[in-house]
Amino acid sequence: MKKEKLILVTNDDGITSPGIRTLIEAVETLGKVVVVAPDSPQSGKGHAITLGFPLRLNQVDIFGDIEAWTCSGTPVDCVKLARDKILERAPDICVSGINHGANHSINIIYSGTMSAAMEAAIEGIPSVGFSYLNYDYEADMTTCGEVAHTVTKKMLSTELPKHTLFNVNIPDVDAKDYKGIRITRQANAKWVEEFDERRDPHGKKYYWLTGEFKNQDTGNDTDVWALENGYTSLVPVQFDLTDYRLMKKLEADWRF
Amino acid sequence: MKKEKLILVTNDDGITSPGIRTLIEAVETLGKVVVVAPDSPQSGKGHAITLGFPLRLNQVDIFGDIEAWTCSGTPVDCVKLARDKILERAPDICVSGINHGANHSINIIYSGTMSAAMEAAIEGIPSVGFSYLNYDYEADMTTCGEVAHTVTKKMLSTELPKHTLFNVNIPDVDAKDYKGIRITRQANAKWVEEFDERRDPHGKKYYWLTGEFKNQDTGNDTDVWALENGYTSLVPVQFDLTDYRLMKKLEADWRF
Repeated sequence: MKKEKLILVTNDDGITSPGIRTLIEAVETLGKVVVVAPDSPQSGKGHAITLGFPLRLNQVDIFGDIEAWTCSGTPVDCVKLARDKILERAPDICVSGINHGANHSINIIYSGTMSAAMEAAIEGIPSVGFSYLNYDYEADMTTCGEVAHTVTKKMLSTELPKHTLFNVNIPDVDAKDYKGIRITRQANAKWVEEFDERRDPHGKKYYWLTGEFKNQDTGNDTDVWALENGYTSLVPVQFDLTDYRLMKKLEADWRF
Repeated sequence: MKKEKLILVTNDDGITSPGIRTLIEAVETLGKVVVVAPDSPQSGKGHAITLGFPLRLNQVDIFGDIEAWTCSGTPVDCVKLARDKILERAPDICVSGINHGANHSINIIYSGTMSAAMEAAIEGIPSVGFSYLNYDYEADMTTCGEVAHTVTKKMLSTELPKHTLFNVNIPDVDAKDYKGIRITRQANAKWVEEFDERRDPHGKKYYWLTGEFKNQDTGNDTDVWALENGYTSLVPVQFDLTDYRLMKKLEADWRF
């Protein structure tokens, strides 16, 4: 008999977000699901880990028969704790999301959703993060659920390199305008920040981060292009950050 | 007259750490230095940004004539706020560190030191993070200061791609065994976690992150190899995380 697949589900919006519920429903027919997710919103936490404080785990009963835990730390802490303290073996896949908001292009660097998935991939667990280009918690996530089911099923039935990691973003378009999944690269983009400066009741300044997204990439093979044209983008991701081109040039040119 | 170079100094250990003082002293003869650093230790914060809370900036007078600010946020917040609210123009370079502890190989992903430098590089500011393979705040950082001076001076006097980012790690060896700077790639490595499980005075479990570093890379061109052999490692870093090899394979093989 084939062994049932073990699926770790996590996210960064926290265990009560609609996105993680959609994701659980999307993958629960594909194997045994275990959920380990932050007990509070952890958006923008990137690949942060908790070093200066201890962590808590609490089992919760909010997804019917599905085993679920909250963790007091970051999304990456969730994956580390799941592996060491909760799961009896390495899962066959880690799925993260569905994030309420985009994680395409440079956003992958800041994203707790993607960092959780990356942590699992570093561990040798094929992983995928799903994000929806809509921040509204009331938004209809039907297409997102279908995409999550399709991609997860495909990953579970394919022989993939063990460090495989996908960044999947789903466009916010009407069903009639939705065009399917496209394999893309990470667009070259950045945020231009403008902090909103205010004064507290004591007259002291404080600052809220605000910013405007700038796509600097004109290619039609990027995640941003795909999303703007009604496609779900799927970027295969790796975490060797070496710039090999510059490395070669420096080896030839630089003497210390 | 040549315009004086503008140098942004930051770190993740916080503004009172010996490492940032060493770094300031190493680069202050190379241009005008402005320091914007966290007001508290931010190790392991990765590329986290602060979304749910406002941020504070406070000017401090602890480095003689040098303009210095503390920021209540993460290392990446420091760079964003420096750019938008403190510096009159884009700096010519951002230097981060000197971190008390290693940031070679996969540690770059978790490192606040390197994430601060990466944030500046995303902004188009050539940047470098320095880390010392010694966690002791009392450690002699003479070699570190010399390396920081040499690398920063070289970067300021070279035409570099504007997104240039270097991850520099300095070995903890006696001066007589130190061999100089070597250009390397990021070693393939990971952490194997074992959470230390304890019980609080109320009988409830909590967990401290502990872990063991595992180098899985036998190459002699890696940062880990260089450090083990008495060299400072310099890895050129980029932040396009696309796995182009897997992308090509998927484009050929995958149909949804």
